[in-house]
Amino acid sequence: MATQEIDFWFDFASTYSYLSAARVEAACAEAGLAVRFRPFLLGPIFAAQGWNDSPFNLYPAKGRYMWRDLARIAAGRGLPFRRPSQFPRRSSLAARAAWAAPEHARAAFCRAVFTANFADDRDVGDAQVLDALAQDLGLPGLVAEAEGATARKRLRAATEEAMARGLFGAPSFTVGEELFWGDDRLEQAIAWAQR
Amino acid sequence: MATQEIDFWFDFASTYSYLSAARVEAACAEAGLAVRFRPFLLGPIFAAQGWNDSPFNLYPAKGRYMWRDLARIAAGRGLPFRRPSQFPRRSSLAARAAWAAPEHARAAFCRAVFTANFADDRDVGDAQVLDALAQDLGLPGLVAEAEGATARKRLRAATEEAMARGLFGAPSFTVGEELFWGDDRLEQAIAWAQR
Repeated sequence: MATQEIDFWFDFASTYSYLSAARVEAACAEAGLAVRFRPFLLGPIFAAQGWNDSPFNLYPAKGRYMWRDLARIAAGRGLPFRRPSQFPRRSSLAARAAWAAPEHARAAFCRAVFTANFADDRDVGDAQVLDALAQDLGLPGLVAEAEGATARKRLRAATEEAMARGLFGAPSFTVGEELFWGDDRLEQAIAWAQR
Repeated sequence: MATQEIDFWFDFASTYSYLSAARVEAACAEAGLAVRFRPFLLGPIFAAQGWNDSPFNLYPAKGRYMWRDLARIAAGRGLPFRRPSQFPRRSSLAARAAWAAPEHARAAFCRAVFTANFADDRDVGDAQVLDALAQDLGLPGLVAEAEGATARKRLRAATEEAMARGLFGAPSFTVGEELFWGDDRLEQAIAWAQR
């Protein structure tokens, strides 16, 4: 029997996606499930909802709460967290690089990007920053490849699939047709995959 | 030493508040905490964010997900749930009635209103429906009192306090100055109160 899979959908600019990226592999492994990292872009999805910025910037009360909530949760999990000096950071180059990465290295690259953005306050929209992260993982040439047509096409396809599946935020998890939104729904997604 | 208290903030039209209303008393009692039911109105808070309807209606993908998420969670908890034929229902008369109720009966009345709306699909914006619920709880005259100046004033004060505390959605929980948003944050609010 094939291992049941969970798809983990995220945008590198998404704060709560950082929480999930740090724990989804261990949580799925413990449950005997495979997980696929699927970066996509929230920008076009937010634009379709009439937003030209993160809702956390557009709705200040919600934004203030999110930063506090995130700091509390990260502290509770012992996860390093520093509020980025720029939010949201551009995430499309990082997402294309992730799609350009070989499958076995994709999750590690994604974790490195999230850590750079949300623990080390580095500009993950910058090609040189991404290149350094890729080099550290033994993936030279990844950022150059991210500029190519193939990587662009894969990211566009992922974003279109996210929209078609009804995603409206990140992180999201899908198990077959079933959608779960938010880091706080990871356990439910896992339970669903184990039914 | 005084028992540590959690304030439970909600709007009777709020779907996720139904989930919390059904479990907050037992969860707090088990943790040795007191809970205060504090109905307020989301309408003025949403209006300040530029919304003239529930975000679940304004953003259809989010709305579709919410109904599915709610049904899954209710099923998992064995909580009766039927999608109301009208959403959101007017909640201001019910909220004023809740504030008019004697303190010892407030939580029970609130639970009855939530059950009527989200399990029995009854129009809790209707004075007769609310009156029947109040009668069942031995609270005749409650709805008449809800029309009075005192109840209006108490609801207005609660909504203003909610805004001042930075609330932007429901359910929310406050422990001192600390804010927790969403039924899925109840456990964190309880843990915070126990620190």
